[in-house]
Amino acid sequence: MNNPAQRKILALSGGVGGAKLALGLSRVMAANELTIVANTADDFEHLGLHISPDLDTVMYTLAGLNNQEQGWGLAGETWSMLAAMKQLGGETWFRLGDRDIATHLRRTELLANGKTLTEVTTELCQQLGLSQTLMPMSDDPVRTFVDTEQGELAFQHYFVREQCAPAVRGFSFKGLESASPNPALLKLLNDDILQAVIICPSNPFVSVDPILKLTGVTEALKRSKAKVIAVSPIVSGMAIKGPAAKMMKELSMPVTADSVAQYYGDLLDLFVIDESDATLVESIKQMGVAVATTPTVMKTIEDREHLARFVLEQV
Amino acid sequence: MNNPAQRKILALSGGVGGAKLALGLSRVMAANELTIVANTADDFEHLGLHISPDLDTVMYTLAGLNNQEQGWGLAGETWSMLAAMKQLGGETWFRLGDRDIATHLRRTELLANGKTLTEVTTELCQQLGLSQTLMPMSDDPVRTFVDTEQGELAFQHYFVREQCAPAVRGFSFKGLESASPNPALLKLLNDDILQAVIICPSNPFVSVDPILKLTGVTEALKRSKAKVIAVSPIVSGMAIKGPAAKMMKELSMPVTADSVAQYYGDLLDLFVIDESDATLVESIKQMGVAVATTPTVMKTIEDREHLARFVLEQV
Repeated sequence: MNNPAQRKILALSGGVGGAKLALGLSRVMAANELTIVANTADDFEHLGLHISPDLDTVMYTLAGLNNQEQGWGLAGETWSMLAAMKQLGGETWFRLGDRDIATHLRRTELLANGKTLTEVTTELCQQLGLSQTLMPMSDDPVRTFVDTEQGELAFQHYFVREQCAPAVRGFSFKGLESASPNPALLKLLNDDILQAVIICPSNPFVSVDPILKLTGVTEALKRSKAKVIAVSPIVSGMAIKGPAAKMMKELSMPVTADSVAQYYGDLLDLFVIDESDATLVESIKQMGVAVATTPTVMKTIEDREHLARFVLEQV
Repeated sequence: MNNPAQRKILALSGGVGGAKLALGLSRVMAANELTIVANTADDFEHLGLHISPDLDTVMYTLAGLNNQEQGWGLAGETWSMLAAMKQLGGETWFRLGDRDIATHLRRTELLANGKTLTEVTTELCQQLGLSQTLMPMSDDPVRTFVDTEQGELAFQHYFVREQCAPAVRGFSFKGLESASPNPALLKLLNDDILQAVIICPSNPFVSVDPILKLTGVTEALKRSKAKVIAVSPIVSGMAIKGPAAKMMKELSMPVTADSVAQYYGDLLDLFVIDESDATLVESIKQMGVAVATTPTVMKTIEDREHLARFVLEQV
């Protein structure tokens, strides 16, 4: 594992869905070959803590600490702080588990000490024994706001507090224009050793777009010799997890995998869809996007490894 | 309870010992008669949280939420955050319980929103159902440093991290000179309705002194018509709790109740000592300090109530 990597694979990830494929990748390739860049536009400050939901979901998942039944957070979590906070009349809509709070306290402390989010993430990952590289898309704050029928909502207010109920009209990413992409991300995109960029089956609008829309990232992706492969987050007209399908409907997009292919457009060298969507192959090809089908629903660890292997075989 | 108070009683308190008498007082007098002012020179910032150990000990004790066996912290506490923090390589020497963290998060958040520590304390106490008045000695930061043979230590480093092991040479209270005493404390000291100031059996050096040494407080105490009554924290040559006896020894003071009486000096109108120290009555009287004896060791709730009633009877 200490040998120099023979190739590099970059995965772009949001939270749960992306973390599943990232875990699969981490199990079928050398640790030093894999770099995962996570969305940080979902990050927010809450009760004075810097919370990075997508980074944490990927980190906990790769460390084997995630709560698989619940789909988010840590296994064996306790909720004493939240119970006490309720008694104190503080905010309890964001479900902060007691173990999880250690991550946020430590991150907030290290950031206050002047470390970058990349440095903090590296330290947390090392402490949890990860040998893959996980990094934030940027060290600068980018914050997703959701334009809804009830007005503009900060992402976590939309996502957690309002449980995605308000109908979506659009998105804005505050800080995006002044944020620098993670220098290590740009370096990797410009490195010939990079063989593939895998866009995980994450929400295109609020998980993947913030990464792609960082200054210079899409250009570097298009310029890169690496093969850009996206896995559809939409299967049989539904999102496996999260509000992607609901958002597409509210944005008047057909809730289909080919609609996602069209959204990513000429960025893609290959689009991977679930075998249940095989009837969409022709329409995707007609967009000029190569397409491959395989089972993409990741219920078991074998499912995750299968999809990871399948994607790597397309490189 | 909504009638105007017929009298006011002020208790000056540190942590555990003071909280015991404060609880006794709260059970034998009307809530609107009792004001407790707690030391905040033990406060510190840890993991980005504003922690007020003495305020919290009194608050938890009056709310019936304190852990009686342990002597500090909350009953039914869990320790998940600390276990996770250890895994993350962060600081774990200060035992932050999960329920306790809610208090610190809420306090830190409200302070960051511009509230004073007095306002925050009032809000926390109201949420926990307290009807007595508990307030910090000051809204300004005062921080105790302990001069030891190992050099100067911030109080919680001395008290918790080093478990009071280094021999003490003296104390300094950073910020004391520029700190304003709580305006409500000065107002009460200048109010004729104030009948007594009870100095709880707390550590004279690090719990009571920071309150007394705030600009104008000792002068106002001496000027006040209220009777100043201290209860000895030293019984039979030992401290019931905490490092008071060890400190006295290291400061070359006799570890006796009369030594405490001498330390407080002409501030006192009455000094209450344990019946086991009755042989010290004459030497205390010779200092010009009136003295009363009664059982002062508070093991049971009845002990707390007894001592509270006894002190109030001396007013």
